[in-house]
Order: sequence, then structure tokens, then C-alpha cells
Amino acid sequence: MPSLEEQLSVLMRGVQEVVPENELAKKIQKSIDTGVPLRIKLGVDPTAPDIHLGHTVVMRKLRQFQDLGHQVVLIVGDYTAMIGDPSGRNSTRPRLSHEQVMENAKEYQEQFFKIVNREKTEIRYNGDWFSKMSFNKVTELAGSITVAQMLERKDFKTRYTNAQEISVHEFLYPLMQGYDSIEIKSDVELGGTDQKFNVLRGRDLQQREGMEPQIGLFMPILLGTDGEQKMSKSFGNYVGINETADTMFHKVYNIADNLTESWFELLTDKPKSEFSDLIKKDILQAKRVLALDIVSQYYDAAAAEAAAEREKAIHSGNELPSDTPEVKLAAGNYGILDLLISIGAFASKGEARRMIQNSGVKISGRIVSDFNEQLMIDNEAVVQVGKRKFYRVVLISTLL
Amino acid sequence: MPSLEEQLSVLMRGVQEVVPENELAKKIQKSIDTGVPLRIKLGVDPTAPDIHLGHTVVMRKLRQFQDLGHQVVLIVGDYTAMIGDPSGRNSTRPRLSHEQVMENAKEYQEQFFKIVNREKTEIRYNGDWFSKMSFNKVTELAGSITVAQMLERKDFKTRYTNAQEISVHEFLYPLMQGYDSIEIKSDVELGGTDQKFNVLRGRDLQQREGMEPQIGLFMPILLGTDGEQKMSKSFGNYVGINETADTMFHKVYNIADNLTESWFELLTDKPKSEFSDLIKKDILQAKRVLALDIVSQYYDAAAAEAAAEREKAIHSGNELPSDTPEVKLAAGNYGILDLLISIGAFASKGEARRMIQNSGVKISGRIVSDFNEQLMIDNEAVVQVGKRKFYRVVLISTLL
Repeated sequence: MPSLEEQLSVLMRGVQEVVPENELAKKIQKSIDTGVPLRIKLGVDPTAPDIHLGHTVVMRKLRQFQDLGHQVVLIVGDYTAMIGDPSGRNSTRPRLSHEQVMENAKEYQEQFFKIVNREKTEIRYNGDWFSKMSFNKVTELAGSITVAQMLERKDFKTRYTNAQEISVHEFLYPLMQGYDSIEIKSDVELGGTDQKFNVLRGRDLQQREGMEPQIGLFMPILLGTDGEQKMSKSFGNYVGINETADTMFHKVYNIADNLTESWFELLTDKPKSEFSDLIKKDILQAKRVLALDIVSQYYDAAAAEAAAEREKAIHSGNELPSDTPEVKLAAGNYGILDLLISIGAFASKGEARRMIQNSGVKISGRIVSDFNEQLMIDNEAVVQVGKRKFYRVVLISTLL
Repeated sequence: MPSLEEQLSVLMRGVQEVVPENELAKKIQKSIDTGVPLRIKLGVDPTAPDIHLGHTVVMRKLRQFQDLGHQVVLIVGDYTAMIGDPSGRNSTRPRLSHEQVMENAKEYQEQFFKIVNREKTEIRYNGDWFSKMSFNKVTELAGSITVAQMLERKDFKTRYTNAQEISVHEFLYPLMQGYDSIEIKSDVELGGTDQKFNVLRGRDLQQREGMEPQIGLFMPILLGTDGEQKMSKSFGNYVGINETADTMFHKVYNIADNLTESWFELLTDKPKSEFSDLIKKDILQAKRVLALDIVSQYYDAAAAEAAAEREKAIHSGNELPSDTPEVKLAAGNYGILDLLISIGAFASKGEARRMIQNSGVKISGRIVSDFNEQLMIDNEAVVQVGKRKFYRVVLISTLL
């Protein structure tokens, strides 16, 4: 096993918080002294099986623990998923059926093991213990915490204060997640910072059972490609790990500039010395290196290079991104503003006019300068809006 | 089956509230039309097995339903008792073991069936369903209500506002009580007014199951012998139904005057026309009639008359109540004030002095008029304070 210093230097990269802070080094030292690997817990409720780069921040940390010789335990929350983690939510989740959850779980694992080493992972389903748990034991769990403590949790507090509904069953979720830690005897539980309350429940319940309590290691929440909100499918600012190399490269290469440093730190193994200067000197080159690194993790270096080439062709106007939408129009004369609105590029003529005035609209490579222009559409055309939005206009046959 | 009017006139006696008010008559009429008796639920958690007259208010109502042909279902909360009903509590109840609960349940039923007809009662233990209930079903129950709704319940609200702890498991109790109603398909649930929230949970859960919901019939809380606080063992103002005929008669005969009317209404079948006038004309005679009636319910008319005779002897100073405490003193000379304090009749000399000035202290039948009096105690003596407090003073042998 690597030394304590080596382990900490790998494991602490990108970490937002360790609770309690002083116990991680002790646990690692004990593991080195005894030769017994630490048990590193990650609990996932496969409510939606699509993994994006935001999820991989924690998974990459698991992989680092594995590479240092520790034991990862993945808890598939087949039972808890039926309740749905209320963490960070502002409304009650819909309940899922067990079949849905198990189907999701299968898809989830296929993606999960692109990052985490399958051979070095113990997989547990929490239905194994919760399906057998008596009502009496449930009340014992529920008796471990007060209503006031629950309502101190930030998202619950906000909802309660704003008179948004909190269903009583949502109070059971953190206790179930906590109980998982007793079952698998975890030493460290990983999670995003929004998991702090739940992870501390595990610590509390383990102590009540007379066990050495786990510590919580919390990773920051990754911002999405827009650089403003957390990465989430529902915000449309995500990079899915099942996307094509081209799409993945394209999305990463075009992220908001301010993300570049944190994405390097959280999504690659590159030393800080390598990327810090590059970001300052040449942000586009830095994003290219970042995108190459990330795409290589899910494909290979050759695929990444090929994607980089295609991205270059797109930016020089020679090629369209693979996800360019196709819009069907009848041949004929169109006012440029009407055209832009009918293909869905703008919601109002005012917006379209401003973009034309800023030289931001091209038709098949030619910059449009007059917003009163009439266009004869009698063949395929490519409409480009700003740097990155493309529309392929094709003709509806009029000979039907 | 008796007519709707007859049934309502019996059943509505003493009732504080029916929720919803208009449904009781409908349920009874339907039962008359179909010949199917109503299922009348009472749930009890035998946490403490001693039944006093306060508990009998609801039991007598059950008996009335039985006498009208309806089916009583007694739910012994062997499972819920392990949690403990938080209703009206200002702190979390200690959890009881199943053995303790079952032992209590046995004692409880022996007393319960002094009032309710055993032959016409279906007894169910809620452990039958809760011991088999899955965690998943528990979360479904918990999902039927919000935290805000729970915190609207008066006792929870008070505790939450006063920063007194409410354990999360206490939120499960009303849902369990409610679920009992689904299992036994109750039409009416009886309870004290402090049970309103829980009984309405049953109504709500039955509706969610697509059942015709039960209605709640709430009896007032009986005040204890002091006429101030609710009857309760812990306030010392109770009349236990296992007490001797003499003690029972003595306690009832000596209740605060203002209780007489409500006790007649809630604890006897006497028509209001009989007791109303009597109370106005001769309160002592009214209380004598009340005590005779109540004692006759648990013993018989002869035992009640005998108890009345002994009570009369006590009031005329010829006999002591059977529960008179015996106080042991060494023979010798005592100042009257010291004596009254050493036997525990008063906490301070000031109080004792005032009582003597009001001619409220007798020694063996003689009114004490001088609070400086010295008494030679060389034989047994009876100290009487006010009308109803007696102490039997006996000598400690000094010849040891």
C-alpha cells in the first residue's frame, strides 16, 4: 500500500469537505498498519440511469480509492429508490416501481463500470435488508432523530418555511441511507455536498450500534456546460458519458471559460502545474487538452483526436456538428426574419434582428447584413446562429 | 334493531363531537335497512393496565352500541404500544417490550369486560398486521401525510414551538392507528377528544383504499375527583374500577360538587330528568345516588348500600374510611401544631394554625380550638382534618 502522504495527496484532490476532518488520515494509517483495506461506500438510487460528467466526479474518487488498494462497496438503492432521495429537492419525488428501478440499475452499472473497476467492487442491493426489516425496527430507526433535527436540513427547512409540502416518508430516507452504512460496515462514505446530512445519519446510526463510525468525504457539485447551474439533464447543460466522442468533445470544448480549471481538477488526473498556466496563456488550447483527456477516458486517444479534427472543421465552417437539427421547408421566397423564426432559431423578430446587426447570422457561410433581405430557398442551406448553433434547411418536395 | 331515533337518543348522550356530524345517522339507517351491524372500533394500547372511571366513559358507549345490536371491535395495540401514543403528551414515551405489553393487555381485558360484553366483542391484536408489514408499505403510509399536517396537531405543535423534542417515530403512530381501521373495516371509531387527529387519519387512509370511511365519535375527557384536572392515576384524582366498593363509594360521594351532573351523564344511565332536579335540591343526596349507581355497576346494589352505610358512619365520626393512613408515634406530649406536621397532615405550621382557627381539626372527635394546646398521646387517636382527611395515630411500643 502507498504511504499515508501519497494516499492523501491523491485522495484530497478536488475534495470539498471531510467530516470529521481529522479522521481520514487516522483511518488510512490504521489501514496501512493492519493491511486491511478501507470500505468505501457509495449509495446510488438508479432513479434515472443516465450518467453524466457531474456524476463521475464521485466515481473517479472511488476509482482512486481502488487504485490505492481500498474496497469499494456500491449500494444499489433498489429499495430506497422507491422512496426517492429528497436531498436538494423542492418537491416530493414520484415513487418508482421495483421493476423500473431494477431496469435502471442494470443500465446504470454498465455506465458506472466505465469508470470504476468492476473486479474491485462489492455490489449490494439495499432491498436485501430493507425488504426484511420489521416495522418495529423502522420505528427504532425513526426514533434515532427528532423532527426538529430533520427540519434543520437545509432543503427540508426551505420547503417547510415556504409552505411547500414535505411528505412524512421523506424523513425515512436519510435514515435508510444511514442504515446501509451499518449493514456494509463502511469506513468512508462518498457523496456530493448535498449528501452531508444523510452521510452523517450513517455515522450516527453506526455509533448507536457500537461500531466505529464512518467519515464523510464530500466532492463539490460540478457545474454544467453553461457555467451557471449544476450539471443536470433537466437543465440541458450536461455531457453524458454515453454520448459519441464527437458530441462529447464538442460539448467539452465549448464550455464556459470559467469552468476550465475545476473541470481539469475534478474530471482529469492532469497535475495542476500542467493546466494552470495553459489556461492563463491559451484558453482555447486548454479546453482542447481538457476535451481530449475526457474523451480519451471513454473512448481512446485516436477517437479523441478524430473528434478534435471534426470540431475544428465545424469551427472553420467546413463541417456541421453531428447533432445539427434538420428543418424542412417548402421551396420559395422567405423574408430572413420570418425564416429564422420558422426554423426555431429565435422566439421573436427583435432577437433575430439584433443578432443580424451583430453579424451573428450566416446563410451557407455568408454573413447576413440586411434584416429586410428576401431569400430564395430552392436548395439545401445551412443557417448558423452565433458560433455554435446550426440548422440544416432541406426542401419539402412540392411534387407530391 | 331499534329505530334510528331510539338509537341516536342513546348514542348521542354525553357525546362531545361526531366527525362528520351528518354521517352517523346515515350509517345507522343503512345498518337498519341492510340488517348489517356497524363495526365500532376502539383501539387501546395497554401501556398501563389500570382502568379508572375516566376510561369507562368510552367503554360505556361501546356497551351502548352493543346493546343496540352493533359489533364492537377491540384493537389491542400490542404493536403500537411499543411506540406509545404521543397524543396529549409533552414528551416522548419510553418504549415497552412486547412481553410487558402482552402482560398489561391481559390485565386490561379483565377490567374492560366488566363494562363491555365479552361475547359481543371481536378482539384483534395489531401486531398481526404490523409485524408482517413491509418497510415499503410503511413508507406508503408515511407518504399519505405531510410534515406540516403532522405539526398542526396540537400537542406536536406545542412541543415543536417550545423546542421540546418530538422523535420522528412518533409521527408513525397516528398512521398506524389509522391503518388499523383499514384492517378491521370500522364504521365508527370511538375515542376521547384527544384522539381526533388519529381517528381522522383512519378516515383518510380508508378513503385512499377506496373504502367507505369511518366516522369519529368523541367523548369528553372526564375530570377527576378534584373537579379540576382530567382523571389520571398520576394526578391522584382517579377512581379505579378495581377498587373496593367502600373506597369507590367514598371517592365518588366526595367529588367536587361541580362534577355531579357530568358524572351522572357520562357514568350512569339515569335519565337527565331524574338527576337534574335532585342536584339542585340536595347535592349530597344526589352524590349518594350517583355513588350507589356507580358502585352497583361494579358490585351489586347490596354492596353499594353497605358502602353507603359505612360512608355515613365515617361522616358521623363513627367509622374511619378503609384507606385511612396509619401513623406511628412514640407515646408522649406533643404540641398540636408539631403533631399535625409530624403525621404529614400539613406542610407548615401556618396552614395547620389556619385550619384550627376554622375549627377544621378534630382529635378523636373533639374539635381543637387552641393551636398552643399540648396533647398527651398515650393511646390510639384519630386525627381528622376537614371533612375527609383522617389519620389513625398508633403508638410505637417503647418497651423494645
